Amino acid sequence: MATVQRIYNFAAGPAVLPVPVLEEIQRDLIALPGVGMSVLEISHRSKTFESILGRAEADIRALAGIPHNYKVLFLQGGASLQFSMVPMNLLTPGSTADYIDSGSWGDKAIKEAKKVGPVNVAATTKAENYSRVPRQDELKLTPGAAYVHMTSNNTIEGTEYKALPDVGDAPLVSDTSSDMFSRPIDVGRHALIYSGAQKNMGPAGVTVVIIRDDLLQRSQKTLPTMLNYAVHAENASLYNTPPAFAVYALGLVMKWLVGQGGLSAMASKNERKAARLYSEIDRTGFYRGTAHRDCRSLMNVTFRLPSEELDATFVKDATAAGLDGLKGHRSVGGMRASIYNAFPEDGVDALVEFMKEFERTRG
Amino acid sequence: MATVQRIYNFAAGPAVLPVPVLEEIQRDLIALPGVGMSVLEISHRSKTFESILGRAEADIRALAGIPHNYKVLFLQGGASLQFSMVPMNLLTPGSTADYIDSGSWGDKAIKEAKKVGPVNVAATTKAENYSRVPRQDELKLTPGAAYVHMTSNNTIEGTEYKALPDVGDAPLVSDTSSDMFSRPIDVGRHALIYSGAQKNMGPAGVTVVIIRDDLLQRSQKTLPTMLNYAVHAENASLYNTPPAFAVYALGLVMKWLVGQGGLSAMASKNERKAARLYSEIDRTGFYRGTAHRDCRSLMNVTFRLPSEELDATFVKDATAAGLDGLKGHRSVGGMRASIYNAFPEDGVDALVEFMKEFERTRG
Repeated sequence: MATVQRIYNFAAGPAVLPVPVLEEIQRDLIALPGVGMSVLEISHRSKTFESILGRAEADIRALAGIPHNYKVLFLQGGASLQFSMVPMNLLTPGSTADYIDSGSWGDKAIKEAKKVGPVNVAATTKAENYSRVPRQDELKLTPGAAYVHMTSNNTIEGTEYKALPDVGDAPLVSDTSSDMFSRPIDVGRHALIYSGAQKNMGPAGVTVVIIRDDLLQRSQKTLPTMLNYAVHAENASLYNTPPAFAVYALGLVMKWLVGQGGLSAMASKNERKAARLYSEIDRTGFYRGTAHRDCRSLMNVTFRLPSEELDATFVKDATAAGLDGLKGHRSVGGMRASIYNAFPEDGVDALVEFMKEFERTRG
Repeated sequence: MATVQRIYNFAAGPAVLPVPVLEEIQRDLIALPGVGMSVLEISHRSKTFESILGRAEADIRALAGIPHNYKVLFLQGGASLQFSMVPMNLLTPGSTADYIDSGSWGDKAIKEAKKVGPVNVAATTKAENYSRVPRQDELKLTPGAAYVHMTSNNTIEGTEYKALPDVGDAPLVSDTSSDMFSRPIDVGRHALIYSGAQKNMGPAGVTVVIIRDDLLQRSQKTLPTMLNYAVHAENASLYNTPPAFAVYALGLVMKWLVGQGGLSAMASKNERKAARLYSEIDRTGFYRGTAHRDCRSLMNVTFRLPSEELDATFVKDATAAGLDGLKGHRSVGGMRASIYNAFPEDGVDALVEFMKEFERTRG
């Protein structure tokens, strides 16, 4: 096979995948070993797929240390569909859901929940452009809330919770789409965790939901069947045809994560990568981080230059130098370097070198 | 690359894909030519993905001759989610939806629609085990119905409409999941067509919806955003992260279909394949087709042997002979040979030979 030229992909998601995973997918694409069919062609009711799904779940459970009273579901529709599924299943009549508004995605989740039932915004940093996550002392929680919703990492704004908020006895629901499995996660402190795969877990097309068993009792039979957590749990994610290939690829990423030493090892690597980048951002004042220092994301590093013109030049020159996807989200501007689990350390080095050189010549 | 052993895959879906499509996916898996990233890693907001999506849509439009006043959407959740989305968007307050019940999947669609609003079952062949589709003279349509829902091909029972039912001025909604693009389709006679990809169009994980513009006005803003056709139409299927890889693979299948001569050429090939199989089924009476002759499916050929013991032996021996996936759905029993677009003619020949030999030795 000819060598292929790959560039550094700083995109926020879909995002870079581990090369060994891509190589295994490529090798077995025409026919899985001993199966005689492509993974794209096998029945989701076959023993082969059953084993693919089972291994992916087992690795997820092992990596995160998921307690036995939680189900792991493989669904479709991304975090965007979870914004609706969470309240449709959990916001029972007569109750209120608390939402901590720490970023653009949390704000979208609130809008969807309000279509379903009463929502209390327990805290918001919207007025500060979501440059930090709300502090514990700012939370105004509803006694007996149906649940409290949070976003563990804010992809667009580049902020991340360093410790879970204390929500008392309320079930904690977390959108972990952009930092899932980038560090250890205390599943037992959550009631429900959801994550679109396309940042740290695999390709776009599959969504992982981890849900505590007692919550499944809230799902009403009047719900659209496909939006009912209890149905998917009873059918072990095989109520209907799952996104089989995406589950397969996600399973290979999980296997890779296990091989990398698991979530603690991954956290060390991610801290190292992010520290290198933030240290360059802080070095002279030419670059300016947009997130408060105490909640800087290890996954999405957002920064600006002294002017919007320089921002644009930076992105253009970086792209030409093989550093792709650095343009920040339009709502924040500036730059965003997404450095998920699979993003290589030498790619961070390359960006740091580029930043130094850019400052030297344009600063 | 080492040669790989492939078997004949008669599965009902996910199902066989064209080998040239698998080969192209494999070739470009590590990095798309000139892009430097895998299709599994590219941003859905990138020019590269925009072009992949655009080409897929253009080929779909060309293949089916889709009029300009229809949108083509790429969604997630399969036909099962469409069972809910159709009534949630189209069954406006005060109106009734007509459903033609011609098989197990149509029955599921009815159950979901009833959660949303009034449903009239315009005709059903349930009492006959869905061994045929309802005749025109059996339809009891509601004047001014919100829409009439049908299933063009019944995957489980092996029946297929040979001509569209006449539903007057009512918008016709068709679940075409299992015969989409196996033959020409008169889009202009439909108001909405939906199809899970994993039979004739591509791998599991993407659902194609073709919807007439005027229907989009029925979608209420109170709907969950992800279930709102109008939102997906306004955002050209990019409201949220689409199942990018599945769209890419589907696009390659569309390109292959164009190269095969389009839907008329495909219909001729499918008629030839099915005729060969039905002719063997009818040859001596040893095999017995389960569907009425006038609505036998060209996609899913269902048949039985004189006893359930022989059915089981047939499936076992066929599997051992490299003819996989022939076991019929549990609700029908017997055998089902799914011979979608990508199923090779020599695979049909191999099955016919196997059937002859099986009858000779076991008959």
